[in-house]
Amino acid sequence: MIRVVLIGSGNVAVHLAKALEKTESIRLVQYFSRTDRNKHYFSENIPHTKDMVSLVEADVYLIAIRDEAIEEVASQISDRKGLVLHTSGSISLKSLRSAKRYGVLYPVQTFSKDRELDWKKIPLALEASSPDAMALLRELASSLSDRVYEIDSVRRKKLHLSAVFANNFSNHMFALAEELCQENQLDFELLKPLISETGKKVISIPPEEAQTGPARRHDYTVLEEQANELNRDKKVIYEMLSQSISSRYPKNET
Amino acid sequence: MIRVVLIGSGNVAVHLAKALEKTESIRLVQYFSRTDRNKHYFSENIPHTKDMVSLVEADVYLIAIRDEAIEEVASQISDRKGLVLHTSGSISLKSLRSAKRYGVLYPVQTFSKDRELDWKKIPLALEASSPDAMALLRELASSLSDRVYEIDSVRRKKLHLSAVFANNFSNHMFALAEELCQENQLDFELLKPLISETGKKVISIPPEEAQTGPARRHDYTVLEEQANELNRDKKVIYEMLSQSISSRYPKNET
Repeated sequence: MIRVVLIGSGNVAVHLAKALEKTESIRLVQYFSRTDRNKHYFSENIPHTKDMVSLVEADVYLIAIRDEAIEEVASQISDRKGLVLHTSGSISLKSLRSAKRYGVLYPVQTFSKDRELDWKKIPLALEASSPDAMALLRELASSLSDRVYEIDSVRRKKLHLSAVFANNFSNHMFALAEELCQENQLDFELLKPLISETGKKVISIPPEEAQTGPARRHDYTVLEEQANELNRDKKVIYEMLSQSISSRYPKNET
Repeated sequence: MIRVVLIGSGNVAVHLAKALEKTESIRLVQYFSRTDRNKHYFSENIPHTKDMVSLVEADVYLIAIRDEAIEEVASQISDRKGLVLHTSGSISLKSLRSAKRYGVLYPVQTFSKDRELDWKKIPLALEASSPDAMALLRELASSLSDRVYEIDSVRRKKLHLSAVFANNFSNHMFALAEELCQENQLDFELLKPLISETGKKVISIPPEEAQTGPARRHDYTVLEEQANELNRDKKVIYEMLSQSISSRYPKNET
């Protein structure tokens, strides 16, 4: 039984709490959050504290808070014997070096409070300060997910950066598409089957191959016409991305 | 029974052929393709011709070819009594005006030959030259899909433009993410659950709300660090899209 204290109450913390609670070999003994704001997302069985000095003893202190605060919060629990972990893709392992034993458990996923997720399928990128820390981290991670990888800070940053393109930027394209629909009194529902298929297709067909549309076809008539229908912000994005797509495909490939 | 001649053998034509063949109230009586290249994608039961003058009589001539060739091909069958349709999002209805009766059936979806699709769920945007043409078009469309909309050329162009953002550009983000993975010896499989969730999430949560990541958080430390890890092409895209995301969210919202 691994006893875990969770620090944080944002999207990642809420999802972690649910997953940890459901896992037999883990006991979530407490969570820390300065406010009651997201209290309703946590089970009432999990003791809540607003005070860092009241953290109970545990095998693992799992810090799931915004990046900028990680180092400071870790330093506040540096005297604890338990393994101190953060969950960030972009913060290096050494930001936790004030702790005795530390590591990283980065879930490669996007978390919204109202979405259910299957943790067994979420890739977890692990890094630890020592073989002994890694052993415990690996035990914890393997009980959450079937997809556990050891990835160091340098490559984890690259992975996080790839995830920004794969999720943040693609989602922003959906947001711009929705905005365009609204501007033209078109129901965004019209695009949902397309978006859904776009996400599914990439699982079986490499995105380079799955690409369609005027930029891939070097169809300059349509490209120019479409660019001219857009306002400044979207127009610049349209032209830059079309150019980036076109440059990757030969002309006349059909 | 609506008798249909299909003109074209690209991604859209292949998918249309499969759907039309399966539909009871429709009979696909012939398809036209200048070459045998995609012949193996068509059922052997459908007669194939390489010669426009050999097109048989039909109720509908469904043109599913690249945009630039639509007007020219339509003019070659202008003496036919059947309804002449194209399937393009960006080509206006009047490109078919040489025909006696004409219309547009634009499926809002992305088509790859090796993906199965449920046509019943694909939104079809319709436009026709007359109420009589619309009646037949509507009958054809409704037998293919449960989601049929009347949308004129001007708004269809906007819809197509939105679809470019929703599909072509988001897919390009996946392609850039894959490239980044390759450059850093990271397995693209690591990102697939994230991509899958990204596409699913938008169905239930508006993309504006679903957005996460450093740009939404105005996390300039991470933004600058990440931009500096990228080469020229990706760096420019990273900065522009991060800027576009940040500008849509207030600072200190969480």
